[in-house]
Amino acid sequence: MQFELTKEFLDDLRDAISEGRDTFLIETLEQLHPADIAEIFDKLKPGEGNYLFKLVPQEKSADVMIELDEDDREKLMATLTSKEIAQQVIDLIDSDDAADVIAELPKQKQGEVISHITDAEQQVAVSDLLRYDEDSAGGIMAKELVKVKRNWTIARSIREMRKQAEGVDQVYTIYVVDDEDRLVGKLSLKKLLFSSSSIKTLISDIYTEEELNYVTPDVSGEDCASLMEKYDLVALPVVDENMTLLGRITIDDVVDLIKEEAERDYQLASGISESVESDDSVWVLTRARLPWLLIGLLGGVLVAQVIGIFEVQLAKVAALMLFVPLIAAMGGNVGVQSSAIVVQGLANKSLDTSGIFIKLLKELAVASLNGLICGGVIFLYGLLFLDSMALSYTI
Amino acid sequence: MQFELTKEFLDDLRDAISEGRDTFLIETLEQLHPADIAEIFDKLKPGEGNYLFKLVPQEKSADVMIELDEDDREKLMATLTSKEIAQQVIDLIDSDDAADVIAELPKQKQGEVISHITDAEQQVAVSDLLRYDEDSAGGIMAKELVKVKRNWTIARSIREMRKQAEGVDQVYTIYVVDDEDRLVGKLSLKKLLFSSSSIKTLISDIYTEEELNYVTPDVSGEDCASLMEKYDLVALPVVDENMTLLGRITIDDVVDLIKEEAERDYQLASGISESVESDDSVWVLTRARLPWLLIGLLGGVLVAQVIGIFEVQLAKVAALMLFVPLIAAMGGNVGVQSSAIVVQGLANKSLDTSGIFIKLLKELAVASLNGLICGGVIFLYGLLFLDSMALSYTI
Repeated sequence: MQFELTKEFLDDLRDAISEGRDTFLIETLEQLHPADIAEIFDKLKPGEGNYLFKLVPQEKSADVMIELDEDDREKLMATLTSKEIAQQVIDLIDSDDAADVIAELPKQKQGEVISHITDAEQQVAVSDLLRYDEDSAGGIMAKELVKVKRNWTIARSIREMRKQAEGVDQVYTIYVVDDEDRLVGKLSLKKLLFSSSSIKTLISDIYTEEELNYVTPDVSGEDCASLMEKYDLVALPVVDENMTLLGRITIDDVVDLIKEEAERDYQLASGISESVESDDSVWVLTRARLPWLLIGLLGGVLVAQVIGIFEVQLAKVAALMLFVPLIAAMGGNVGVQSSAIVVQGLANKSLDTSGIFIKLLKELAVASLNGLICGGVIFLYGLLFLDSMALSYTI
Repeated sequence: MQFELTKEFLDDLRDAISEGRDTFLIETLEQLHPADIAEIFDKLKPGEGNYLFKLVPQEKSADVMIELDEDDREKLMATLTSKEIAQQVIDLIDSDDAADVIAELPKQKQGEVISHITDAEQQVAVSDLLRYDEDSAGGIMAKELVKVKRNWTIARSIREMRKQAEGVDQVYTIYVVDDEDRLVGKLSLKKLLFSSSSIKTLISDIYTEEELNYVTPDVSGEDCASLMEKYDLVALPVVDENMTLLGRITIDDVVDLIKEEAERDYQLASGISESVESDDSVWVLTRARLPWLLIGLLGGVLVAQVIGIFEVQLAKVAALMLFVPLIAAMGGNVGVQSSAIVVQGLANKSLDTSGIFIKLLKELAVASLNGLICGGVIFLYGLLFLDSMALSYTI
């Protein structure tokens, strides 16, 4: 049942595109999930993609657009007018995705697209969201949510929620607000549906004020992710300083964030300063790596200076020189290992500065043990393959 | 509103423990979320932890137990009898967490604990789950779920679901099964609650068969995670070969899995072969790193052999030797960068073997560009600081 993009399938599709067999293409697209269609676009040439996109069923095309890779989307967007973007894409998707898509457009096109949005509520929501930093809670949140007033009855709540829920993909939690629209608690759909109370019961009798987590729009996306992870939340409300409900962050956005962050950590640790993928341009890839190589170069020059001090002695026993790279490389390897442990400790916040002396002592013990073993191995190698006993000892 | 574990707070708590001020401790624990209490345990000495655990409010202690770090939990478990573990912990938590906790116990204690479980349903569920591999869909899934029969009315469904939902923390999706208990579709709580149909409507009229994702128990956790990530799922049903519903995987378990995997990738890339944390024992840390260091050592010896071929020439111009470590280190740095990009490409499945020649060509272009720039810099350095023009050119 799981869709897998095979080479055969892709070849069939490309043939159909080049031969203009639209009926076949439309039928195929109708059976696929937007995320699968987006995966196909990633493998097509721009011309093929533009052709295929026109055949995507109306109700799926907006979803396909948000599932696309950023650069695929950029190419496709360039073929649409501002009005088309507003009415065929932005009007049909959640406000957070809409804001993300618009933020990727050239500055002057952004205003045009916003002015063409037909849904007035969406227009306000998107303009609002664009003000926040992309990596903050405000930048990740969606405006769509379901909320009820504390003094409503269950019957009225269900009536009002039915209207609100139309615009909301997935209802995770119902937020409870007071008369001034301030967040005071939450209510699970489960509780509402399965509570044995009558439909005349007031919300104030069944909602919970406990374990109400929320963030302000300026909280970093990373902090939102750890909060949701720690308390196993599927949605996190965002409020302003007066506790007025601004929006909500959902777990699917946070999952993407967690993955991106892990990738960035890894790349940084490997000496790549910008977030890059293997299909980025040569110049982007070069620029991301160069700074660290230059720092490495500086280090190498310093090493050369230090070895230079012993130039005369080394010239006498050139064989010793052969092992200088070995020793330097071992030092490098150990450094990478130690730094990986520390970086992860920092990322997990499982590392603290208390007992730093103990930790240093422990690193020292690990280092000594590894050093002894590796030293022993290389000593054995020296005994077996080198002529000089003194040389083996020295290494 | 967000709990932060400060040093002052921790000191207060430890003082209270050593002075036996139980009332203060109980009051403090009552206000905290289980995840926060677990964070405190991570900072306490085992003796302090055992003391504090006895004061954790009954209804929270099981949740605290599953939020604990694996080694903290192990220490605490060792102080409890099999009967206590079964009745104070296992009976009160979801079947997937229960199976995880039991799997960590010594083999002979596992059977004892299972035999002491009071809830017969939980007993069967846990024994069942323990048969699956820890990293497979079967090992991650929980048995608790909400399902309705296709031919039930909405009224009957709500009645039955009210019973089922008692044991389920969070209801994400309602699964629809046929008379033979085979999964045929799903229904969102939202649809059930807000559908304008009467309570006499049949489930078969409102449920959806579309976009029904599921996995079998042998699918790897990693594949489940990518599936849920791709289709933005909060829950994924697990079925056997006859489509009989076995359990469901929830997004919070998958978030943990994604994080663990990212950590393991990073550690592997840094040359650490087991999953370790900075607070593991010296011997565990040493063992995790040693294999890679030995491989590095072997590489170093080979390098020494190669340089050895030029020993006579190098002895004449010892200054050239100074730059051997620099050149070797640069090679190492570039290798780490390239491998990071490729490893991530593989992890994302964004890398495929089509056009491998183009990719190699591109890597070559990036390498040449970086090489030219770094070479230029070191040449300049040579011109300025070394006596010999020939030496600069050579480097």
